[in-house]
Amino acid sequence: MTDTINIVTTEVPGPKSKVAAQQLDSIFDARAVHFVADYAKSSGNYIVDVDGNKYLDVYAQIASIPVGYNNKTLMEAARSPEMISALVNRPAIGNFPAENWMSILRDNLMRAAPKGLDQIFTAHSGSEANELAYKAAFMVHQRRLRGEGVEWTEEEISSCLNNAKPGSPDLAIMSFNNSFHGRGFGSLSTTRSKAVHKLDIPAFNWPKATFPALKYPLEKHAAENAAEEKRCLEEVESLIKTWHSPVAAVIVEPIQSEGGDNHASVAFFQGLRAITKKHNVLLIVDEVQTGFGATGKFWGHDHWDLSSPPDIVTFSKKAQTAGYFFSDSMLRPDKPYRQFNTWMGDAARVILSSAVIGEIFEKKLVEQTARVGAVLYAELEKLASRYPQLIQNLRGKGQGTYIAFDTVSAAPLLKKMKHLGINIGSCGKETIRLRPMLIFEEKHVAPLIEAFEKAFEQ
Amino acid sequence: MTDTINIVTTEVPGPKSKVAAQQLDSIFDARAVHFVADYAKSSGNYIVDVDGNKYLDVYAQIASIPVGYNNKTLMEAARSPEMISALVNRPAIGNFPAENWMSILRDNLMRAAPKGLDQIFTAHSGSEANELAYKAAFMVHQRRLRGEGVEWTEEEISSCLNNAKPGSPDLAIMSFNNSFHGRGFGSLSTTRSKAVHKLDIPAFNWPKATFPALKYPLEKHAAENAAEEKRCLEEVESLIKTWHSPVAAVIVEPIQSEGGDNHASVAFFQGLRAITKKHNVLLIVDEVQTGFGATGKFWGHDHWDLSSPPDIVTFSKKAQTAGYFFSDSMLRPDKPYRQFNTWMGDAARVILSSAVIGEIFEKKLVEQTARVGAVLYAELEKLASRYPQLIQNLRGKGQGTYIAFDTVSAAPLLKKMKHLGINIGSCGKETIRLRPMLIFEEKHVAPLIEAFEKAFEQ
Repeated sequence: MTDTINIVTTEVPGPKSKVAAQQLDSIFDARAVHFVADYAKSSGNYIVDVDGNKYLDVYAQIASIPVGYNNKTLMEAARSPEMISALVNRPAIGNFPAENWMSILRDNLMRAAPKGLDQIFTAHSGSEANELAYKAAFMVHQRRLRGEGVEWTEEEISSCLNNAKPGSPDLAIMSFNNSFHGRGFGSLSTTRSKAVHKLDIPAFNWPKATFPALKYPLEKHAAENAAEEKRCLEEVESLIKTWHSPVAAVIVEPIQSEGGDNHASVAFFQGLRAITKKHNVLLIVDEVQTGFGATGKFWGHDHWDLSSPPDIVTFSKKAQTAGYFFSDSMLRPDKPYRQFNTWMGDAARVILSSAVIGEIFEKKLVEQTARVGAVLYAELEKLASRYPQLIQNLRGKGQGTYIAFDTVSAAPLLKKMKHLGINIGSCGKETIRLRPMLIFEEKHVAPLIEAFEKAFEQ
Repeated sequence: MTDTINIVTTEVPGPKSKVAAQQLDSIFDARAVHFVADYAKSSGNYIVDVDGNKYLDVYAQIASIPVGYNNKTLMEAARSPEMISALVNRPAIGNFPAENWMSILRDNLMRAAPKGLDQIFTAHSGSEANELAYKAAFMVHQRRLRGEGVEWTEEEISSCLNNAKPGSPDLAIMSFNNSFHGRGFGSLSTTRSKAVHKLDIPAFNWPKATFPALKYPLEKHAAENAAEEKRCLEEVESLIKTWHSPVAAVIVEPIQSEGGDNHASVAFFQGLRAITKKHNVLLIVDEVQTGFGATGKFWGHDHWDLSSPPDIVTFSKKAQTAGYFFSDSMLRPDKPYRQFNTWMGDAARVILSSAVIGEIFEKKLVEQTARVGAVLYAELEKLASRYPQLIQNLRGKGQGTYIAFDTVSAAPLLKKMKHLGINIGSCGKETIRLRPMLIFEEKHVAPLIEAFEKAFEQ
C-alpha cells in the first residue's frame, strides 16, 4: 500500500531543504527549520519534503495537524463560499459579525464544548487563549470584591492608566513547574518548562507549584506516587493561602506536554478541583495540546470524572483555531469592550475547525485514537522490555496515542528516526513524545515500531 | 451609480440584526455588536446588514479592510491552490515551512518592507506583533550587557523559571499617554488610552511619557506646539535616564488612533529618533493602524524623513496578517527557539496580504488615498467653518484619509450618521475618526459630507 510507504533517500535535511532554508534565512529566521516541506505531495499521515523524502509524521506540526495532510473534507471547507467570504471580508467579529457566525459557532465549535461549558470566546493562538482566560479570571476576581453592579471609582480608572494600584491590582495566576502555557508576557509568566522560552523577558511575580513527579511503572509505585500527589496538592493549597497577592486562578495541562509529558492521576486533578473550589480560585484547564481527541477522549479532562467542570477550558492546535470555553456568566465582564479586540480570532480558521470536528465525529476518530493508542502502547511496552535503557518510564497508557518515554539521548534518536522515515519530536529533557494525528491507524503501528527497533540496534 | 447608493430603511440596528445579535449572545458576547452584516451583499466601500441596509463604510472593520468587500483580486487569492494548501496543511512555519514560504514573503510582504528594514517575523495580530517586538528588544538589551557569545549562567537559567532576577530582569518599554498597543499583558502594559482596556488587569511598572497635545489650527499655534513637543521630548529623555529600570525600547504610533487621533510633528518624531539613538534605546513604531497606505504614504513614518530607520516596525489590520520588520541582525536572538511559537502567524493570511499589496501597488492606492484625502480634508474644512462647534480641531491634513475632528457629543452623531447610511467610528473622548478603505474615491466624498450636513442640521 502506497499509503504506508515511508522512504528517505537523502540525509535529513536533504540538499534541497538545506538550500531552501538558507535562502529563507536571509529574511526570516530559519534556524529551527527541520526540513522544507512539499505539502502538495503530502497526504494523510505522511509528510513529504522538497527532496522527495516521505515520512510517517508522528509529530504533526507540533501536535497540530488533526485529520491528515490534504484531507478532502477540509479541502472542501477551504473551497466553500463561506470560507472565501471569511478570508476576503475579514470582520471585526465583536462589532460586525457575519450572518452565519452564530451557526458556525453553534453547529460546530459548540458541538465540541466540554461538558457543562456553554459559552465561547474565540482567539488566534493558544497563548492568546490562555491570556484571555487570565484576564477573565482577574476581572471576575475584582468584580466579586467590588460587588455586583458597583461602579468603578475615579481612583481605579486613573490609576490603571498608570499601571498602578488599585486599578492595576497585584493578582496572580498559579501554574506548575514544567508547564507550558504560551509565550505572551502573561502566558510566559505561567510557563515554567525551559529557560529558552523565558530568559531575559520580564515576568510577573506569580506562584509556581510542584507538579507530581510520578514513578513508573505506576502499579509498582502506587503508594509513593499517591504521597507525591498529596504533597503537591498541599503545596497548591498552601501557596493559595500564603502568596503575597491573591491567586485568581490555577492553570494546569491535563498532561504537561512541552515540559516532558508528565502525567498525574485522576485523584490529583479531582483534588485540584476541590481545592480551587474551596478557595474560590478559578481552575483553567489548558487543553491546547491535549484537546480535540488525542488522548482517546475528546478533552483530556474528560478522563477525570470531575464533580463540577473546570471554570475555563482553553484550546488551539488540532482545533486549527483557538479560544476558550466557559459557563459562569460572571466570566463575561461587567461591561462590553473589556474582553475585546479587532478581529477576535479568525472566522476562516473557525470554519476549518468545523470541518475538523465533523471529521472527528463522523469518522469516530476519538474512539479510533483510543483503540489504536492501546495497540501502540502494548507494542511499545514489549519493546521497552527488550530495550529497558532506551525506553524508560513509558507513559500514556489509556491516553490514546498520547504516549511518551524517556531515553538516554533524545536528539540522536530523533535524527536516526528521521533517516528511517519517521518524523518525530521530543519534549522535556530526554523524552520522546508521540503526537500522531487522529487518523493514525493500526497499520501505522508496525512501521513506527520497526523504525524504533532499527534505530535502537544501530 | 449603484456603487454610490447608500440607503438605510430601518432603525439601526434593524429588527433582523437585533434578533441575530440576541441569538448570538446566548453563546458569544454580542454586547458590542453594531449590526450583523451580510457580507455576500457587501461590495467595495459598501457594507450591507441583514436588514438590507447599505452603508458607505468609513470605519472598515476598525480600519482593517484595505481594498473593499468582495475584492476580486483577493477572491482569486482566496481560491488559489496555495491558499487551499495553507489552510488545510497549516504548518509550524518555524520547523516545517512550505516550499513557497520564501517566495510568499520575499515577493510580497518584503515588497512592502519599510525602507532600511530587511527582516520579518510573522504573527497573528497587532498585539502579538508588539509583544514579539518587546521580547526582541529585551533579548537584545540583555545580550549587549552579557556580551556577544557569552553563555547564559546557571543562575540566569534557574532564576528565570521562577520569574526572578537575574533571568527575568526588570526592564521596561516606554509608551505615551493615550497610546494603544494591544491587549496582551505586555502590550496592555504599554496601552494607556482607556480604563476599559486595562482595569483589573495586572500590569508591568513601565514608564509613560506625555504625547504632545497640539492645538489647532496648527498654523495659529506654531510656537506653543513647538514648546509642547520640546517639553514632551525632554520628558522622554528624563524618563529614560531616571526610570528605576532600564528602558529597552520606546514604542510610538505615528498617529495615536484609538487614543483620539493625536498627531505630532515631523520634528517630534525626529527628536524621538535622536534621543533613542543617543541612549541606545530601540524605537518601535507601531504601524498597526497607520500602515499599509492610509496616511497617503505606505507607512505613517514615511512622513518623517528620518536619518536612520526605526529599529522595529509592527503591522497588522489592513495587512490582513501581522508581524514586524527589522534589520539589526542582533534582533535575531542569540539562539533559535527563543523567538518562536507553533504557528508563527498564518500563511493563509500572508497569502491574502500579498494580494492586498498587489492591489495597492498596481492600482496606486497610496497615491489615490493622498489625493482623495486632500479633497476630503478641504471639504471638511469648509464644513468646519459652517459648524465650528460640531467640527473642532480638524486634523490629518496631508495624511491621506486619516482625518479626524472633535465634536461635542460623538455617540449621537455616530448614530445619526448610521441612519443616514454612513458606517463610521469614534476614538478618544469625543472624536470622530475617518477610516475609509484605500479604494475610497472622490465620488464618495460628497455622500459623506452631505450626511454630515444633514446630521448637523438635525
